[in-house]
Amino acid sequence: MGTKTIPIVKKILNANDQIAQENNKVFKDNNILTINVMASPGSGKTSMILRTIKELSSMCRIGVIEGDTAPVTIDSDKVSNLDIPVTQINTGGECHLDAMMVRKGMEQLDLTNLDLLIIENVGNLICPAAFKLGEDFSVVVASIPEGDDKPYKYPNIYRGIQALILNKIDLLPYLDFDMDYFQKGIEVLNPGVSFFPLSCKTGEKFGPWINWLKNYL
Amino acid sequence: MGTKTIPIVKKILNANDQIAQENNKVFKDNNILTINVMASPGSGKTSMILRTIKELSSMCRIGVIEGDTAPVTIDSDKVSNLDIPVTQINTGGECHLDAMMVRKGMEQLDLTNLDLLIIENVGNLICPAAFKLGEDFSVVVASIPEGDDKPYKYPNIYRGIQALILNKIDLLPYLDFDMDYFQKGIEVLNPGVSFFPLSCKTGEKFGPWINWLKNYL
Repeated sequence: MGTKTIPIVKKILNANDQIAQENNKVFKDNNILTINVMASPGSGKTSMILRTIKELSSMCRIGVIEGDTAPVTIDSDKVSNLDIPVTQINTGGECHLDAMMVRKGMEQLDLTNLDLLIIENVGNLICPAAFKLGEDFSVVVASIPEGDDKPYKYPNIYRGIQALILNKIDLLPYLDFDMDYFQKGIEVLNPGVSFFPLSCKTGEKFGPWINWLKNYL
Repeated sequence: MGTKTIPIVKKILNANDQIAQENNKVFKDNNILTINVMASPGSGKTSMILRTIKELSSMCRIGVIEGDTAPVTIDSDKVSNLDIPVTQINTGGECHLDAMMVRKGMEQLDLTNLDLLIIENVGNLICPAAFKLGEDFSVVVASIPEGDDKPYKYPNIYRGIQALILNKIDLLPYLDFDMDYFQKGIEVLNPGVSFFPLSCKTGEKFGPWINWLKNYL
């Protein structure tokens, strides 16, 4: 019996990953750095985005895609008030953005006029982790009041991200938050991830996050 | 042409609702009051449950089903340390509990020895809203640091609940939280819902919540 050649099929992307890859190519072709911002509801994603815009809008052209489960424009209005192009995706109750939704959002923006695209995902510490959007970097915004045990309880969202912001450090004096315990949890899931404890409200320690982003712009 | 009789099929429950209804019958047969506690990660569900146990365990027999996406027993251990029967459901990354998971959890508890069953859902402000578990009451634990706009952004979870706890009022002095704006959002979604602003940490205003629960025990 002769040796047969077994055909090897390369890893086939699922539909979402396929579209995410296509989205990323569009971003690359337009020299746009894209970040996917994920977090629990109320951790301060929008505050982080607004302050990032204020810090960077003099040096680069920024656009925002806002993901919301409900058809309210609370966050989009805040971005729009800063004269930044923004498009909102209403997921219609869905718990995450997916690559096709982002593609639809991209169609509403002039991509030739952007250097940085910030995608604000739906507030959810579970489902968004499973859906690539085409971003260059994924960022999680955690926050002090959520507690130091979140990496242990919601591990998937912390894996595979490139930056972790820990917001609301101005509240540290009023809460029991064990920073070592939090960081140990992160270290196991995502060793060496860029880590930025800061306050979007007071601006304390916001600089290192901005500098990290500038490195890629 | 004679008048035909058109057969009318009653509303058919989906599989989850069917099992939820069966679960509820088991609870009723055992005279157990069951509450489904839903919230965003870090709002204080477990703290609320622990304090409720401390306040009520002298007057009734309490059991807990803990829902977690990850196989860690952080919350279950805290409950177990109070000598309360607890069973944990690891959803394996799933973003909510469903009625079948709860049925499996029920099998691990001695239901003939319970008056109150507290089910702690997975921390998520979106997906759990769509899955009845068989509970008598659904309760959402919101919290001050999450912000006053959550009812507008995550409306579904606030609809159809019987009680709304607003936790961490001890942090009100340090945060911008417009109570009127929050309550107006709730009023539209769920007029007249029982509302309990309180602090699980300090115990401030915890009494009205306990009294509400006692009414049904």
